[in-house]
Amino acid sequence: MSTVAVVGATGAVGMELLEVLHERKFPVDELRLLASSRSAGTVITAAGQDHEVRLATPDAFDGVDLALFSAGSGTARELAPAARKRGALVVDNSSAFRLEPDCPLVVPELNGDAIDGHAGIIANPNCSAILLTMAIAPLHASAGLKQLVVCTYQAVSGAGARAMDEWERQEQADAAGETPAAELFPAVIARNVIPWVQAIEADGYSTEETKLLLETRRILDLPDLALSATCVRVPVRRAHAQAIHASFERPIAPAAARTAFGGRPGVRVEENTLPTPRDVAGTDDVVVGRIREDRVFRPGLALWAVMDQLRKGAALNAVQIAERAMRIRAR
Amino acid sequence: MSTVAVVGATGAVGMELLEVLHERKFPVDELRLLASSRSAGTVITAAGQDHEVRLATPDAFDGVDLALFSAGSGTARELAPAARKRGALVVDNSSAFRLEPDCPLVVPELNGDAIDGHAGIIANPNCSAILLTMAIAPLHASAGLKQLVVCTYQAVSGAGARAMDEWERQEQADAAGETPAAELFPAVIARNVIPWVQAIEADGYSTEETKLLLETRRILDLPDLALSATCVRVPVRRAHAQAIHASFERPIAPAAARTAFGGRPGVRVEENTLPTPRDVAGTDDVVVGRIREDRVFRPGLALWAVMDQLRKGAALNAVQIAERAMRIRAR
Repeated sequence: MSTVAVVGATGAVGMELLEVLHERKFPVDELRLLASSRSAGTVITAAGQDHEVRLATPDAFDGVDLALFSAGSGTARELAPAARKRGALVVDNSSAFRLEPDCPLVVPELNGDAIDGHAGIIANPNCSAILLTMAIAPLHASAGLKQLVVCTYQAVSGAGARAMDEWERQEQADAAGETPAAELFPAVIARNVIPWVQAIEADGYSTEETKLLLETRRILDLPDLALSATCVRVPVRRAHAQAIHASFERPIAPAAARTAFGGRPGVRVEENTLPTPRDVAGTDDVVVGRIREDRVFRPGLALWAVMDQLRKGAALNAVQIAERAMRIRAR
Repeated sequence: MSTVAVVGATGAVGMELLEVLHERKFPVDELRLLASSRSAGTVITAAGQDHEVRLATPDAFDGVDLALFSAGSGTARELAPAARKRGALVVDNSSAFRLEPDCPLVVPELNGDAIDGHAGIIANPNCSAILLTMAIAPLHASAGLKQLVVCTYQAVSGAGARAMDEWERQEQADAAGETPAAELFPAVIARNVIPWVQAIEADGYSTEETKLLLETRRILDLPDLALSATCVRVPVRRAHAQAIHASFERPIAPAAARTAFGGRPGVRVEENTLPTPRDVAGTDDVVVGRIREDRVFRPGLALWAVMDQLRKGAALNAVQIAERAMRIRAR
């Protein structure tokens, strides 16, 4: 019997969390939807029941067993310790705790063991890091990963529900022959691509690119892994994609690489009907295709990987973490 | 005084060729628009004058001084020798002659000298190869290019005018809540990305990726260059973009890299307002940004480059070739 709080319940990931909890029959006696003052008072229907969204305050976590955070890192830093102090297990989807030594950074299929002995706050990785590690881990296990060059094709919903609304307004302006306006995004995303995600830091890399480096190192336990990324936003509703070029310690042929994915949960190879974001949207698996010998890295492979970033990249991974941490068998 | 034929005049590149000839005041006494039987008879307005499109036959090149081909490679193979036999200089935008030793493959700013002594047919490179070589040549000159990993974000108009129509129909179906249909493209391009351009060959690389390798080697005169690419179609009207990760023989810092672009015609660096396809569409320059130290290649650089693939990537480059080959000074 458990009381589950969802913080940031009205956002794109929050809504997906409610969906995944219901689909996976997560045992919930009381569902407490929390959000900032902007959204408090909203009524949300989850699993056929109406829930009024309450203001996320420290006391709102009284009696909560599991708190799923899908708010910003500021909210997480402020409220996750309060939830923890009241006895809740916290699974946080922000970047606030991802590099904290006491907080495991977990993709359950890859490093679920890290959950055992956690200090009460478990971090859900960045969506791009989940996609990359799920796609590369089977090959790493076979051939020993050395270096990665990764270019991303990231869906608009990764920037949240308001970004989706902005994109839709831009598409309508564009169709009417008007010049679309960009507010949340640094440039128009309608019928365009934007060559950075989040901010650009002093070293020229975007926040997303550095997250991808640091989180991939931590999840795969490869502290010296070299990884160079270009993260790009594309006008796609949901599902991130990545072009991955990888070098390995030992030779691995494309046929052996395909075999390496066999029996791995949550990831599969599709070479005949190559995976596009539209194909993968709304589904749970990471889908890999276009596995070929790399022409620069020897030994090396190039591949293409796609994942619904709201599901496995955020909500599903968080619920999988909670299931494992609370020793709940998914049904 | 010259008679100029444009073959494939009704296509996306053909229309752009007419525009560029007019803008650059290319000396044209007679403009002869040629096309397949599907388009023959169409009337096209260029520079305020109506022109009836004629059927492209060998005899249609009688008296032609310059034949600009923007048709498929089958048409080019069939008709370019006929045009040549009748004394026309041929600039061909297809892949038919790009790897023929007697036919120079030219980006005028980079290897314009190759035009001197040509055998009458000059090949216009693949648009992705033009973008890549224009963006990397200044850095190669400074530091000695060794290896390239390139991921592309290619506009729909690169697949031609009919592909643009298909995309628009898909967008309308999508907006109406219907499932869009893909005919020309192997998957829906509306609000999606497609992880290959043209066909996928036996080695797992797409035709476009192998063109990019072979043509880049030839244009830069680097026959052993290692280049691994993933070419991806994105829902953008015009302007291709590339994420480029490059290794060099000698160290080159980002600041020095920016300096290396100084004084280079046809390419410029924009770090403050980072270039997106929308910014660059309809303009002539290759625009480079996000120059940073690579995290895998040492010494190495990562950068982002954008170019209107119908202009510099096709029509403009072809007209520049013709200007140089016919010793016409652009006005």
